[in-house]
Amino acid sequence: MQDVAIVGVGQSVFSRKCGVSIRELCFEAYTEAMEGLDITNNGIDASIICSAPEYDKQRSPAGSISEYLKLTPKPSFYVETVCSSSSTGLRVGWSLIKAGLHKVVAVIGFQKMSDLTSRDAAERMSRGGDIIWESPFGISMPAGYAMYARAHMAKYGTTEEQLAKVRVKNSHYGAANPKATYRKELSLEEILGSEVIASPLKKFDCCANADGASCIIIASRDIAKRITNIPIWIIGLGAATDTMTMSGRESLTGLRCAQEAAKQAYKMAGVGPKDIDVAEVHDCFTIAELMAYEDLGFAKPGEGVGLIEDKETYVGGKIPVNVDGGLLSKGHPIGATGGSQIRTIVKQLRGEAGETQVKGAEIGLVHNIGGVGQYGNVTILRR
Amino acid sequence: MQDVAIVGVGQSVFSRKCGVSIRELCFEAYTEAMEGLDITNNGIDASIICSAPEYDKQRSPAGSISEYLKLTPKPSFYVETVCSSSSTGLRVGWSLIKAGLHKVVAVIGFQKMSDLTSRDAAERMSRGGDIIWESPFGISMPAGYAMYARAHMAKYGTTEEQLAKVRVKNSHYGAANPKATYRKELSLEEILGSEVIASPLKKFDCCANADGASCIIIASRDIAKRITNIPIWIIGLGAATDTMTMSGRESLTGLRCAQEAAKQAYKMAGVGPKDIDVAEVHDCFTIAELMAYEDLGFAKPGEGVGLIEDKETYVGGKIPVNVDGGLLSKGHPIGATGGSQIRTIVKQLRGEAGETQVKGAEIGLVHNIGGVGQYGNVTILRR
Repeated sequence: MQDVAIVGVGQSVFSRKCGVSIRELCFEAYTEAMEGLDITNNGIDASIICSAPEYDKQRSPAGSISEYLKLTPKPSFYVETVCSSSSTGLRVGWSLIKAGLHKVVAVIGFQKMSDLTSRDAAERMSRGGDIIWESPFGISMPAGYAMYARAHMAKYGTTEEQLAKVRVKNSHYGAANPKATYRKELSLEEILGSEVIASPLKKFDCCANADGASCIIIASRDIAKRITNIPIWIIGLGAATDTMTMSGRESLTGLRCAQEAAKQAYKMAGVGPKDIDVAEVHDCFTIAELMAYEDLGFAKPGEGVGLIEDKETYVGGKIPVNVDGGLLSKGHPIGATGGSQIRTIVKQLRGEAGETQVKGAEIGLVHNIGGVGQYGNVTILRR
Repeated sequence: MQDVAIVGVGQSVFSRKCGVSIRELCFEAYTEAMEGLDITNNGIDASIICSAPEYDKQRSPAGSISEYLKLTPKPSFYVETVCSSSSTGLRVGWSLIKAGLHKVVAVIGFQKMSDLTSRDAAERMSRGGDIIWESPFGISMPAGYAMYARAHMAKYGTTEEQLAKVRVKNSHYGAANPKATYRKELSLEEILGSEVIASPLKKFDCCANADGASCIIIASRDIAKRITNIPIWIIGLGAATDTMTMSGRESLTGLRCAQEAAKQAYKMAGVGPKDIDVAEVHDCFTIAELMAYEDLGFAKPGEGVGLIEDKETYVGGKIPVNVDGGLLSKGHPIGATGGSQIRTIVKQLRGEAGETQVKGAEIGLVHNIGGVGQYGNVTILRR
């Protein structure tokens, strides 16, 4: 079986109101991903379309998007694990190539949330949790992550200030990302003083809905070597779940789905946390980034705060994390997010990250979570 | 790479109003699929959940269903190509095993449509077509297939009576299927006299929405040989698309997505149309079955009607088709349909089909179409 490489990455500008259709968003990401590749549309053997459902009117968007990108009659289908949909799409695409069905696959993630009112978007979002036992009783995304934050505080003494420091870092890097929704640096005081959303989480502890698309082109070794000079190899893929119900979880101080996915990805890649040069983690809320440090083994349980206190997750630190601004700065167009994270790591490993480049980065990791911790995906890439 | 076999198949009773949740529907199908296998829940490495979105309130159902079936923390994700979702799920599951990520995968398809009014269901269904250029102007499922029927009539002289004969056959076999929604045999007169839905299609030319679930358990050769006595091998997998817009199609007398998918599946399996002993085709409307005969190469273009006129697609004929009653009798719970078709063929190849058994069936084919012909899947199985 041939190795599989990422040969192209693209992302639309993420914004609060894109003003274009989902097809046009995907076209923007696809066009960037195909730039510089010695291949045309005809060379794409299949496309995998990734998003969360019900935010836009087009049902079954795979058909619509593959037609718009002129990929017909090649197979196209839809893959979903809410916020980690495009990481799941990458894993599926990798499998299609490994299995010998295809040579080149486009994994396209998108979300357009701005057609809905905030209230309608929140209603749909909550139905991504358990609709019988939990979402009707108020377990929304912020409420769920607020429970994690409270549990982490109770067990480890984590403080609101420490949470806010995650946003300080991510807003710092977001300012340098031309494709981010939010490019203003935020001070500790601004973050701590922002309005409470679900205590202890305040407005600036939360990422925001956004419109956007991402595209990752992957190829088997023989094709990859031919169509690009800088293939980035997929060396580790982990995927796991936890119960959809929060009440079914064994612990609320970390995400079992991420821990299991990380274990699988490290094993498959033959590397450990110490080998990771740069990482993107799913910071849908500030607490999520702290838990990710621990779930990924960058720190022991309860010691993740040390990494942010000591600025070890800044560029120049032990393990730079979310140096593109993360979901907190970029905004979170659900289905596009995983692909955007992968794009950032690919650019880092190619040495194309400009002022946020982690010097000599050879191995990178992407941690992408779906829902309130029910789906976990960890992907490890190597230059 | 190891071969992949189907080791278990299950289906809930299909009905117009199941009265239970989607999780319970899936449990019913999963339980039948696991019957007799020397394996427990812990032996399932991953689950793929297949349905069309927006018919039931639970978004991202993979998390909910995998929790209910006690498959946590194994990976679970959602795959969709509307009406052919579970065939796409099978193709993806096959790839996960071939790629070496997993050994045993459960592919679970479901749909519960009875929570919606017919009007609401129809509104959602139409949004599975192009929402900018076509569905707002009336291209619903029946309207789309009525256009195929008119085109076929105009080009080949196909008659309404010939279309009705497909339903006569399928209602005959549906009467013998204890899991079908409709078990009444219909006469040619009853079918031709039923109310017009979208001329030339009448009520009995159309399949009906239903509630139901299906489950297919697949495994790599080493495991398959250990956990079941009668593995059925997946030897051909084809998938293709056509434009989502009807106006983008090159022809309306056949489905390009099916023709392309068939070509791929035959090539991969190393067999041709003449080698198929029994087939399930996607008869969402009577015209769809006639087109399938031609798209699959069972008859030349325009000559499919001969097969139904001469009863060659009955048991005992050259190529028995839909001898479980097809979608027309079983009802069409979108995401469950492909799995139900596969279950029928697996039972045929195992020699477990009872009074509708095709004697000595060794190679079977499943043709499953998504939307108004935008997704085509063809799967070939061997005893």
